[in-house]
Amino acid sequence: MKKARVIIEGREQQVTVKDDQLINAGGKVYSTNDVQVWLPPLNPNKMIGLALNYADHAEELGLEKPKEPVLFIKPNSSLVGHKAPVFYPDGATYMHYENELAVVIGREGKNIKHSEAMDYVSGFTIANDVTVRDFVNNYYRPPVRAKGHDTFGPMGPYLVDKEDIADINNVELRSYVNGELRQQGNTKDLIYTIPDLIEFISSFMTLQPGDMILTGTPKGISHVHPGDTMRLEIDGIGALENRIVDGRTKKGTEKSEAIGGTR
Amino acid sequence: MKKARVIIEGREQQVTVKDDQLINAGGKVYSTNDVQVWLPPLNPNKMIGLALNYADHAEELGLEKPKEPVLFIKPNSSLVGHKAPVFYPDGATYMHYENELAVVIGREGKNIKHSEAMDYVSGFTIANDVTVRDFVNNYYRPPVRAKGHDTFGPMGPYLVDKEDIADINNVELRSYVNGELRQQGNTKDLIYTIPDLIEFISSFMTLQPGDMILTGTPKGISHVHPGDTMRLEIDGIGALENRIVDGRTKKGTEKSEAIGGTR
Repeated sequence: MKKARVIIEGREQQVTVKDDQLINAGGKVYSTNDVQVWLPPLNPNKMIGLALNYADHAEELGLEKPKEPVLFIKPNSSLVGHKAPVFYPDGATYMHYENELAVVIGREGKNIKHSEAMDYVSGFTIANDVTVRDFVNNYYRPPVRAKGHDTFGPMGPYLVDKEDIADINNVELRSYVNGELRQQGNTKDLIYTIPDLIEFISSFMTLQPGDMILTGTPKGISHVHPGDTMRLEIDGIGALENRIVDGRTKKGTEKSEAIGGTR
Repeated sequence: MKKARVIIEGREQQVTVKDDQLINAGGKVYSTNDVQVWLPPLNPNKMIGLALNYADHAEELGLEKPKEPVLFIKPNSSLVGHKAPVFYPDGATYMHYENELAVVIGREGKNIKHSEAMDYVSGFTIANDVTVRDFVNNYYRPPVRAKGHDTFGPMGPYLVDKEDIADINNVELRSYVNGELRQQGNTKDLIYTIPDLIEFISSFMTLQPGDMILTGTPKGISHVHPGDTMRLEIDGIGALENRIVDGRTKKGTEKSEAIGGTR
């Protein structure tokens, strides 16, 4: 089943999605044109992000494949839904979309076995792990400033049940900027698979219902700018579209002190 | 006012604290001996940690003073209260306490001015930002694995109103291990003060009620081991005590692949 959280007729509603129809709890049928606001399909308990989890993406950044999963935490305050504006911040030069399969945890677990890991997954959605590469580019690589801005966490539009995806280890991701294909990848190329990640993370941290794991992005990031529309597709999961809006107060006159290079 | 969240008589209760008396919402008076469990004094919305925010601590780690605040996010799943066990994990060699003044945000703000920053603070508590230094010691310095283990976030016992502290920029921190003084510092030595941090963080991330900022730890970290008791004091705020318990399943035979040195 596909679900979404939307505002229709001024009220927040959870709807199930069939083709282009949205059906609310009372059975009333809407079209996508009736949606005033697409909310993130759930409010995650915590969002765990993966850096460099596709070998070709690590390569395009000139970085070595990590020896263990490299995790960061994305703050909930960065979340927005499908169609929401993403703000281009002061001091940014290299803003990138990152198309990522987001795995939703359905039940609590600790020290989860690899062979049982998928039992803890309830479903999937699409996350755009928006990143200002400039802000990562110093010794401490602070991921909070690079990835934690308000609006840097577009998510959705749909939450898709695990059972609806035949083989989650072989779905294609594609990202378009203003209609032009820029990024293409497949979850079969994940360095650490979903069970690898669940086993690793739960070895030291309890996974709880509503937690999300953003599994990393493949090769094909590129610079985006105010006015650009990012459209992230994952086969069977949906298409997440967000436009970049100029959020600079200083109109690009100020560069971040953190910039150490050109990446 | 000083508040705590405790379990007394099998029920979770918020109590106000006067000297050694705990008074519940109905006015019933308890002693600290009646407390079955000390819970973290609040469930933070998000916990923002600071790396290297005292110059003498950066120096003892052999690291340069950062050019801007270095942030990470501590997961809520790491939280425990006063007196709760902290588990010593597989693969650890260098586990450290970190005594930190935790600042509690009282109202929502974005782009908060330095001069108004303290208006957004509701109070303070003590956080022990427990860290396994081994796990930070590689190129990617993943803070989640080093600082995000279950039980690595002791907090409390009290939430103290801002108004009760005469000068938060001049309070002393002391940490004892098994009664021996190991760490001593003063918030007057913070590299980035509380208003600095609130101004910086809110420049890109909305601060929300219940968010917490862990302001960093001064010089004096040292290795702790199963059986040790950590007691972290901050003048006017309280004393947070936790014992380390062996949580290793492999009894120290396995070292982390991430270890790259001796720090």
